[in-house]
Amino acid sequence: MTDVATSAKGTPLSATPRTRLRRMKEKGRTDRVELTAVLRAGLVAHLGVIVDGHPMVVPTVYGFDDDHIYFHGSIASRSLTTGTEVCITVTLLDALVLARSVFEHGINYRSAMIYGVPRSVTDPAEKLYGLRVLTEHVAAGQWNYARRPSRKELAATVLLALSLAEASVKIRTGPPDDGDSVDASLGLWAGELPVVARWAEPVADPMLRDPAPAPPPHITSRVGKRVDQPDAS
Amino acid sequence: MTDVATSAKGTPLSATPRTRLRRMKEKGRTDRVELTAVLRAGLVAHLGVIVDGHPMVVPTVYGFDDDHIYFHGSIASRSLTTGTEVCITVTLLDALVLARSVFEHGINYRSAMIYGVPRSVTDPAEKLYGLRVLTEHVAAGQWNYARRPSRKELAATVLLALSLAEASVKIRTGPPDDGDSVDASLGLWAGELPVVARWAEPVADPMLRDPAPAPPPHITSRVGKRVDQPDAS
Repeated sequence: MTDVATSAKGTPLSATPRTRLRRMKEKGRTDRVELTAVLRAGLVAHLGVIVDGHPMVVPTVYGFDDDHIYFHGSIASRSLTTGTEVCITVTLLDALVLARSVFEHGINYRSAMIYGVPRSVTDPAEKLYGLRVLTEHVAAGQWNYARRPSRKELAATVLLALSLAEASVKIRTGPPDDGDSVDASLGLWAGELPVVARWAEPVADPMLRDPAPAPPPHITSRVGKRVDQPDAS
Repeated sequence: MTDVATSAKGTPLSATPRTRLRRMKEKGRTDRVELTAVLRAGLVAHLGVIVDGHPMVVPTVYGFDDDHIYFHGSIASRSLTTGTEVCITVTLLDALVLARSVFEHGINYRSAMIYGVPRSVTDPAEKLYGLRVLTEHVAAGQWNYARRPSRKELAATVLLALSLAEASVKIRTGPPDDGDSVDASLGLWAGELPVVARWAEPVADPMLRDPAPAPPPHITSRVGKRVDQPDAS
């Protein structure tokens, strides 16, 4: 695929005016490795588009490789067929940051923002590749387990590819910032309250025919594991 | 507060062209009760704005009452001081939907979208009210526990209020849709793989002074509970 031949791996993320970080308390991570880490940890992105002059934000699943993020175009089909610009944001909430003062409260999080004009994938081979990337990101193992898209299904799928070239990552970690302020003398507890998302037991479709098959190992092996650590053994 | 006097509770959600649902497989819930339920279950919203003609999507915490969603304006301060339109979306991922065919794969989710032009809250009393609503939504109990905002901090806080008048809710639940398709004869397992996010053990700020206070009951009582069920006993 010619358009994934020029790998952007290892190049620094852009620092255009839009992706420049303005909130100084948060760290800007201008490293492509961290972009990949956030995209790997997330499952649902929020896609921002302008529809008839109005902003619109819709959730969507996605997949990615070294150069592109892939997502379904049907989710915002009215606007995305015309080659307009988007912003796609993936955010993971890691913890509440509970400070001594209400003012210093916040969250620990990881967030990636990608800007650009997505391209509608029309080449059947690339479309199949993009759908595999997307499916394997969200539900690893299912591409080989489930029935793959037919030619008709492929034609009915609007798949969009957005370059990862213009992107930024924002991460906040650690305790609240008022540990050395005058508020420290208040004697209040302060710290973080983490959030952990895990896969739960699979729920079989009631329509499964007798004898009902067991869920495959690539699904059952996920149970109890953290959603944001897909590579954990 | 005059602008929260006219309660929108009980009125149906709008069905403007933008909030009309276009994906027929998903259910549109035009009920204000369900909007409230999604907002109550979520913690982080994705705020879509147009900055210099470009869409931008940023994560933000929020709070809400019967009429408004409140969020910090600093997060996108360049654009939001000018009274431009936003779309704010709150999404909860509930499960992967694992079908017999890749084509029918998807997610179970709850998502609320709110449109409108946010108003910068300038009245000190309303600003205090809005910050309390926000703080208590994200970290219930902390408004009474932590030091409340000083006059200087209040002045430094950009708080935005967006009416809940124009909103829509999309929810998908249940098994995949191909249980009665020809693919059912493939004999593959199909169903849902749920995601459950819970509060983990609090992590004390290393800067706590000796003797370090214990985390308060309103924090410790959250541990192990589902993040999306703040009202669960």
